[in-house]
Amino acid sequence: MNSFSDRLIEVLKEKGSPVVVGLDPQLQLLPSEIKVRNFKRYGRNFRGASRSVLEFNHRILDIVSPHVGVVKLQIAFYEALGPHGIESYLKTVHLAQKRGLLVIGDIKRGDVGHTAEAYAQAHLGEVDIDGLTAQGYGVDAVTLNPYLGWDSVLPFLKAAEVYNKGLFILVKSTNPSSKDFQDRRCGAERLCELVARKVNDWGSGLVGKSGYSAVGAVVAAGAPVLGRRLRRLMPRAFFLVPGYGAQGAEAEDMRHYFNADGYGAIVSSSRAITFAYKEQSWKMKHGEKDWEKAVEDAVVRMRRDISRVVDNRR
Amino acid sequence: MNSFSDRLIEVLKEKGSPVVVGLDPQLQLLPSEIKVRNFKRYGRNFRGASRSVLEFNHRILDIVSPHVGVVKLQIAFYEALGPHGIESYLKTVHLAQKRGLLVIGDIKRGDVGHTAEAYAQAHLGEVDIDGLTAQGYGVDAVTLNPYLGWDSVLPFLKAAEVYNKGLFILVKSTNPSSKDFQDRRCGAERLCELVARKVNDWGSGLVGKSGYSAVGAVVAAGAPVLGRRLRRLMPRAFFLVPGYGAQGAEAEDMRHYFNADGYGAIVSSSRAITFAYKEQSWKMKHGEKDWEKAVEDAVVRMRRDISRVVDNRR
Repeated sequence: MNSFSDRLIEVLKEKGSPVVVGLDPQLQLLPSEIKVRNFKRYGRNFRGASRSVLEFNHRILDIVSPHVGVVKLQIAFYEALGPHGIESYLKTVHLAQKRGLLVIGDIKRGDVGHTAEAYAQAHLGEVDIDGLTAQGYGVDAVTLNPYLGWDSVLPFLKAAEVYNKGLFILVKSTNPSSKDFQDRRCGAERLCELVARKVNDWGSGLVGKSGYSAVGAVVAAGAPVLGRRLRRLMPRAFFLVPGYGAQGAEAEDMRHYFNADGYGAIVSSSRAITFAYKEQSWKMKHGEKDWEKAVEDAVVRMRRDISRVVDNRR
Repeated sequence: MNSFSDRLIEVLKEKGSPVVVGLDPQLQLLPSEIKVRNFKRYGRNFRGASRSVLEFNHRILDIVSPHVGVVKLQIAFYEALGPHGIESYLKTVHLAQKRGLLVIGDIKRGDVGHTAEAYAQAHLGEVDIDGLTAQGYGVDAVTLNPYLGWDSVLPFLKAAEVYNKGLFILVKSTNPSSKDFQDRRCGAERLCELVARKVNDWGSGLVGKSGYSAVGAVVAAGAPVLGRRLRRLMPRAFFLVPGYGAQGAEAEDMRHYFNADGYGAIVSSSRAITFAYKEQSWKMKHGEKDWEKAVEDAVVRMRRDISRVVDNRR
């Protein structure tokens, strides 16, 4: 199997777009028809909610898989539904991979020692059940939190190497409070720049044929000047860029997140695509019963908007 | 219901000790008798592994609940076993609370917006299933990662207020790589000191009758000088101190983690208690078949060692 970055570039070439669809199924936003049917069958409880989520994801995947090569699952929305929710997470990973998509588990874990090893093996590798190995969550990449430093990342680096998986390490978010710590000056640079330098180091042993590393960075949309600086600090890293659409960032702001080769960033949108029928811009055209058409229109428009920026960059 | 810090002090008074037992069930360390029985009944798979973990925790809780008032569950070891593992996590929380123990979910989550809200409601509060509310994981407190700043913590602060729960925010770990970021000088202070100041601010609105806040800090053992400084920066915070025993820290190093009133810190040990029969210091005395006696001896000894420090401090 090829390294993660090579697999990523392959799927981006095939689909012709760096768009990532986020499957963040907030229960209250799911179309009623799905919830009514599943609550009737399984109960208005964690089981019925988890089955609703799974059906919703299944239908989203059928719509978006011709248009995008990568999906991102925010595990919080599955974890919130307990064991049944985790079951739907696992099944969604499987459904997406069956369609040839790469799956990023947005878990933002960060811990040390045996705990970090347990997370790394479970999410990227295999779990040892007293000598028998069992497949873990099986995603293609995960997001991580860097606060604990190198040894919290090491077990994931090892798993990434053994299983050809990828990591995206949280460098810069654009929530207002990212200034609390990420933007603090620590000597000559901001904390997020120190993190970026480490991300670049950590990924130096996992560079694929493409020249890109399996260790990428989460760099939120909407920070164009800093984005250019981070791009220089991490030339081989893929940026996972959340916050497009619902969080108000513009495609143009991301121009310098891409390298001159047109690669180097993947741009994720969740609510603005999967719940497009609730968005101001689509709800005049598509009502709730046309929610699937709204999803398709939204993903096609996002592809177009992002392509314009990438093509200009090339 | 009383605020978290008042509930915590009540249980510490009742048990006469700040010891916390960590339930971090690494499958390969579980006594064979438990695994053999559960694998036979449920299969050598995630289900059998999760049932082994649950039985092990059940027996540990029966041994330690006369001696300690708080347990901490590292969710990684449950999450690693998939939906069945999460089921065992939920059941362990319930078993511990039935014995009057407070439960800390060691989740170290950190995210923004709707994601942070989903985590906060699930772990500390109730989950809204289209108008019906369902009990979430129901722990009494969680650990959090601060890298994303105030707005990542806010939904947890709200849940802590509404449901009388507690938070322990990661300030300082003692893994070698904690120097990567936590020990970096950012202006006049280290990053972990900046985090400590924020933790003190964030907790100022949630101070109980005892004078302690519901917002505490994770401060690892083995940093006595810095610990004293952090104690001054967060006078109202309870410190959750991991790393006693297995990670080599001494009770004496923690003297200044406590306030003069004898409160202000709770000290957690996981492997050194629950897997005491594997530790050098006990395995001459107790073999695997006496693992329960080793657990009891280890928790009694830890109580005594920590008490000596706290009593001297008073």
